[in-house]
Amino acid sequence: MAEPFRTTRLVEFHDTDMAGIMHFASFFHYMESAEHELLRSLGLSVHTTVDGEMLSFPRVASSCQFQSPVRCEEILDIAIRISRLGAKSITYDFDFRSDAREVATGQITCVCCRVVPGQPLASVAIPADVAAKLQQYVT
Amino acid sequence: MAEPFRTTRLVEFHDTDMAGIMHFASFFHYMESAEHELLRSLGLSVHTTVDGEMLSFPRVASSCQFQSPVRCEEILDIAIRISRLGAKSITYDFDFRSDAREVATGQITCVCCRVVPGQPLASVAIPADVAAKLQQYVT
Amino acid sequence: MAEPFRTTRLVEFHDTDMAGIMHFASFFHYMESAEHELLRSLGLSVHTTVDGEMLSFPRVASSCQFQSPVRCEEILDIAIRISRLGAKSITYDFDFRSDAREVATGQITCVCCRVVPGQPLASVAIPADVAAKLQQYVT
Amino acid sequence: MAEPFRTTRLVEFHDTDMAGIMHFASFFHYMESAEHELLRSLGLSVHTTVDGEMLSFPRVASSCQFQSPVRCEEILDIAIRISRLGAKSITYDFDFRSDAREVATGQITCVCCRVVPGQPLASVAIPADVAAKLQQYVT
Repeated sequence: MAEPFRTTRLVEFHDTDMAGIMHFASFFHYMESAEHELLRSLGLSVHTTVDGEMLSFPRVASSCQFQSPVRCEEILDIAIRISRLGAKSITYDFDFRSDAREVATGQITCVCCRVVPGQPLASVAIPADVAAKLQQYVT
Repeated sequence: MAEPFRTTRLVEFHDTDMAGIMHFASFFHYMESAEHELLRSLGLSVHTTVDGEMLSFPRVASSCQFQSPVRCEEILDIAIRISRLGAKSITYDFDFRSDAREVATGQITCVCCRVVPGQPLASVAIPADVAAKLQQYVT
Repeated sequence: MAEPFRTTRLVEFHDTDMAGIMHFASFFHYMESAEHELLRSLGLSVHTTVDGEMLSFPRVASSCQFQSPVRCEEILDIAIRISRLGAKSITYDFDFRSDAREVATGQITCVCCRVVPGQPLASVAIPADVAAKLQQYVT
Repeated sequence: MAEPFRTTRLVEFHDTDMAGIMHFASFFHYMESAEHELLRSLGLSVHTTVDGEMLSFPRVASSCQFQSPVRCEEILDIAIRISRLGAKSITYDFDFRSDAREVATGQITCVCCRVVPGQPLASVAIPADVAAKLQQYVT
């Protein structure tokens, strides 16, 4: 299986809640920021311009399963794989650990869209060179 | 089918992102706050005390599917049903609409836990009177 | 002194932190949302169109002083006054109470700007009819 | 003047808003996380235990002045100085730049408190060894 993209993130105080642990919704922020770090590592960006067209990747679905609570200042190891690279859509799989402890797994599915100010988002094929770069993380 | 619990929520500016729409992670905040409103409507709370024991409902899974983007100051109609009421766990189903437009559907599954300061969370049976109150929203 | 604009807001779970209280940064979200509610009550909006021009009110300064911590599900009474209505800028003063208890006071100063996509924000005079509507909350 | 503590932070997508820039309230998150990084660099923590007592630093005031908007994926240089180290309180001054561009300046004033579960926060003197460590950033 392909090696995942790996990054780390320290749990910040403002992401905890009164139960003393990281709030479940903040995992979705952490997933997205790790995804963007993967894109930057490939020379891409949140808003990529290809052939003069601005592309964005709005989400169509996201989920997270929580195995173990995490506390402030824990350092999360995040591994990302691409479980599906379609013609227009990408599904990222996320694995969160703290030391060896399994913390959470999650998914984000997004669709490649052309951004034209003032117009609704329209889905388009993922450009060939973007797809080629993402290929290395496809499982 | 049972009538769902219904509430509304206006999309706030700080929940939008640079794409001009409500950020996907904020749907998880809105789901949770609607769930807590359902609990309050039944005389329960985020942290309920039953027979002198404090109960909480940490999440084990959550997901959301996004059908249509929403913009700042749109008023979302949120309907909540309970698709599964187990001995120890609850699965809430959320339906978001803006006027008649389908916006998103989501789920939160949580587990009833006893909260003792300084100790790990331990799952316990949902108290009978709490389960009885929730029953009206079970589909 | 003029009567302030008044609204209320319930403290949400995701706005608490591991200290068991509402996180200080969330007061800035609550201030902004209350400000926008004031604007809507006057027939205005976050992004107001006047004479075919879109206006926005980016912040130049904000502050908050915290007198007493607040807990989840407390209902905050928020009063807003305008302490300065300049030619181009507005300073809102916020007062947060929970029952009669003083919780926090804050300020937001923003500048009226014309929004033209792709161009930097440019400050402009607050339109006369907008200023006239805001006048009732000037102290 | 003492050298400030320095760190950097990339502006994340979820911290932007529909105006296309980083939301003003997120600066308060970034200030706090930078403050905590300073504490960790000194061997301290968000919740420090000194002589068997847990200490925390709830905020009594915070402010921010915004000079220039920042966009997603800009890297902010953050410098922190301590403008006042009192017997019980600390005032941190923050300076945000993006390349050489001045972005924002801010302040957080917090009070050293003893945390005893179930009891209200009580202010206490900053322990001598904590104060000694902080001294190097006092201007």
